[in-house]
Amino acid sequence: MLPLRGDERLLFEQAVPDAVHLYAHRSNVTEEQLSQATIILGWPKPECVPKAVKLKWLQSLWAGTEEYDGYLSKHTWLTNAAGCNSRGVAEHMMASLMALCRKLPLYRDNQHKHVWKDMGALKTLTGATVLVVGAGNIGSCFANLCKAMGAGRTIGLKRTVTKPMEGFDQIQPISTLDQWLTVADVVMLSLPHSKQTEGLMDASRIAMMKQDAILLSCGRGSVLDQEALAEALCSGHLWGAALDVTEPEPLPAEHGLWDIPNLLITPHIAGGMHLDMTRINCIELALENLKRYTIGQPLINRVQ
Amino acid sequence: MLPLRGDERLLFEQAVPDAVHLYAHRSNVTEEQLSQATIILGWPKPECVPKAVKLKWLQSLWAGTEEYDGYLSKHTWLTNAAGCNSRGVAEHMMASLMALCRKLPLYRDNQHKHVWKDMGALKTLTGATVLVVGAGNIGSCFANLCKAMGAGRTIGLKRTVTKPMEGFDQIQPISTLDQWLTVADVVMLSLPHSKQTEGLMDASRIAMMKQDAILLSCGRGSVLDQEALAEALCSGHLWGAALDVTEPEPLPAEHGLWDIPNLLITPHIAGGMHLDMTRINCIELALENLKRYTIGQPLINRVQ
Repeated sequence: MLPLRGDERLLFEQAVPDAVHLYAHRSNVTEEQLSQATIILGWPKPECVPKAVKLKWLQSLWAGTEEYDGYLSKHTWLTNAAGCNSRGVAEHMMASLMALCRKLPLYRDNQHKHVWKDMGALKTLTGATVLVVGAGNIGSCFANLCKAMGAGRTIGLKRTVTKPMEGFDQIQPISTLDQWLTVADVVMLSLPHSKQTEGLMDASRIAMMKQDAILLSCGRGSVLDQEALAEALCSGHLWGAALDVTEPEPLPAEHGLWDIPNLLITPHIAGGMHLDMTRINCIELALENLKRYTIGQPLINRVQ
Repeated sequence: MLPLRGDERLLFEQAVPDAVHLYAHRSNVTEEQLSQATIILGWPKPECVPKAVKLKWLQSLWAGTEEYDGYLSKHTWLTNAAGCNSRGVAEHMMASLMALCRKLPLYRDNQHKHVWKDMGALKTLTGATVLVVGAGNIGSCFANLCKAMGAGRTIGLKRTVTKPMEGFDQIQPISTLDQWLTVADVVMLSLPHSKQTEGLMDASRIAMMKQDAILLSCGRGSVLDQEALAEALCSGHLWGAALDVTEPEPLPAEHGLWDIPNLLITPHIAGGMHLDMTRINCIELALENLKRYTIGQPLINRVQ
């Protein structure tokens, strides 16, 4: 269920020549195929997983694997694809950030109305203070891009501060969030869903942000109080925001968020297989883990 | 007519203490003020210039000064502001490029329709070949940003190839344009209007571009055959395009360009005074030239 080209299939067959290799698309994998599988490399639908009765290891193509909660036996190994799509997600956040700085969403709206009109002051990242809440692979990659675009200071917040991370001038504990929110020009949320992260970015924290700051979010939508963000944007607090994740997903057609002018919404497409680079990273990870599995070495990105 | 804050006016008064300093806004400068001026720093309306009968030198705030053709005496010195807004224009081109790579204009359109829909494959600049047609200050700055975003190769085309330029792997004569068009993933037009540049990017040259390439244009709209671009985009040739300049400007409301989905139009706002950084650059240039003028040194950016 990895999206493989013909020559790429060969790599897997050569890596484990004495195994039976079955290829299937997510949407048409058969019950027979599932019942034979001891290893699945790819992204089966959660409800298909219990049919893979012999399954010993699932290599997911996503960083977040909570969709398999309750479907996967506790005895089955699970590895995620953290890191594989980091560059793609970071590029999406950077594209969204620059689009907001240059008011491209508003100019697109004017384009639809056939209106040629100067919409006033713009922003630059030159000298900006960038705060990444949830400094992992994506955050590190994003911080690097911000530095490349001229950002003055990049701060990453983590639960456990251990060592410096590429792209960040400072790594700080997430307990210092409030003090950084007051000085950041850009705040990027890159957090998974958990009891600790749910509603972390609430009304009071949004209010702490600078009046002309920009808020970005990838990861999971539950981290952010969307109602509070909507109120802030509509009241003129914040320069703008871009969300690639919402709560719920898909965002219902009647939801109020859709119509906020300085809010850019994309439908959770920052990651996934939208770049060939990401697909290739996933293949490399799956191949490496397959080799490790066959010789009994610890797998990379083991979740359970 | 420079946009100065109070403390910034002092800098000019201290630089030339024995001169009379008059401050006016473009829209309300008086005939009396104009008649007294020997130097204008700023952007007077062209039709105001002949009223400045004592005018010896005009420091413009723009890189292009063709609007003053026919209004300014041949004996009056003219300096432009080339370089002052390069970073801003380059950032706008980069923002537009990344927005196209990530299909943000299409996602914005879907947002208006309240549609949550994956629009498929995206592009990255990683490894891309970037061609800048008209390698000046803006092009050099843009090429630098492309490198920072992972571009593999940056080529700048100039009328006269003299020395290497920052950001570019290669500087080549503009006569080699056709061969580069066939290999570039991104083509950025940054050319002034002239007899040589008019219609340079015509239907045949657009057709030479790679099927999934991206075309960007700042500088002047007359460089590009817009009808040919529209046809190319509508036929599926090219990934997308972004124009900050059109022919004519403003683009008439009834013009066909407005409605092309993968074309992003902004109303010649890449430069100008939209960033405070640009304003400060202009002030520094005007101050430096004012000092040079008073001691009889050659002015920077002299056009005539």
